[in-house]
Amino acid sequence: MKAVDHIGIAVKSIESSLSLYRDIFGLRLLKTERVESEGVIIAFLDAGNLKLELLEPFSEKSAIYSFIEKKGEGIHHIAFSVQGIEDRIEELKRNGIRMIHDKPKRGAAGAEVAFLHPSSTGRVLYEICEKSKGE
Amino acid sequence: MKAVDHIGIAVKSIESSLSLYRDIFGLRLLKTERVESEGVIIAFLDAGNLKLELLEPFSEKSAIYSFIEKKGEGIHHIAFSVQGIEDRIEELKRNGIRMIHDKPKRGAAGAEVAFLHPSSTGRVLYEICEKSKGE
Repeated sequence: MKAVDHIGIAVKSIESSLSLYRDIFGLRLLKTERVESEGVIIAFLDAGNLKLELLEPFSEKSAIYSFIEKKGEGIHHIAFSVQGIEDRIEELKRNGIRMIHDKPKRGAAGAEVAFLHPSSTGRVLYEICEKSKGE
Repeated sequence: MKAVDHIGIAVKSIESSLSLYRDIFGLRLLKTERVESEGVIIAFLDAGNLKLELLEPFSEKSAIYSFIEKKGEGIHHIAFSVQGIEDRIEELKRNGIRMIHDKPKRGAAGAEVAFLHPSSTGRVLYEICEKSKGE
């Protein structure tokens, strides 16, 4: 793992969260994106050395919806940027890490992503992500 | 807020966590430190663009001990590095943010730190920290 790409934060409303993140913390809103497959709207904020990823569910089927129902709003995951994501998944598995995704799936901003199961990582939800070319 | 300095992660045992963070994730252990006033042992790991701060309680009076008792191990806080921490605290308060610490206190590595109350920040525990000279 070479660097943290972003921290994912589950919020009920991106619009109301922006008064904190943009207006008070002074972070620049980079873009928002609707990810149909995940049932979430995502806002990326520039936190200097990484991004904060605000995740607002628009569907009750969204994992973020369930997360907020169970635990409330808050930090959802930490994403490391990697190169060669398929090899990294195999390497993690060889090291005994249980993966939520055995194969990378398409995430926000066209990245390939996979999540590690928190049972293998001290209850922290870690993502590895590989950016698509041009992002 | 210009950059994220570190992410704090509550763990039951730094020693057993290192098999994940150092041996599997390949992060370099920068140093460990015992902070008597907080009842924690802290291990700093180099995650490239920021640090991961593993927090292991050695006292039942530690806030990290209570956190793990209530919520289990996991992500505890996100720390932004700032300059002029006293002015930043006043600015946050003027913007309606409730502070856990109205005045900076001494944290790990000689930094001055203050925490924002999660009731003001969408249930995310944010810290602001200012490094001491020479750190």
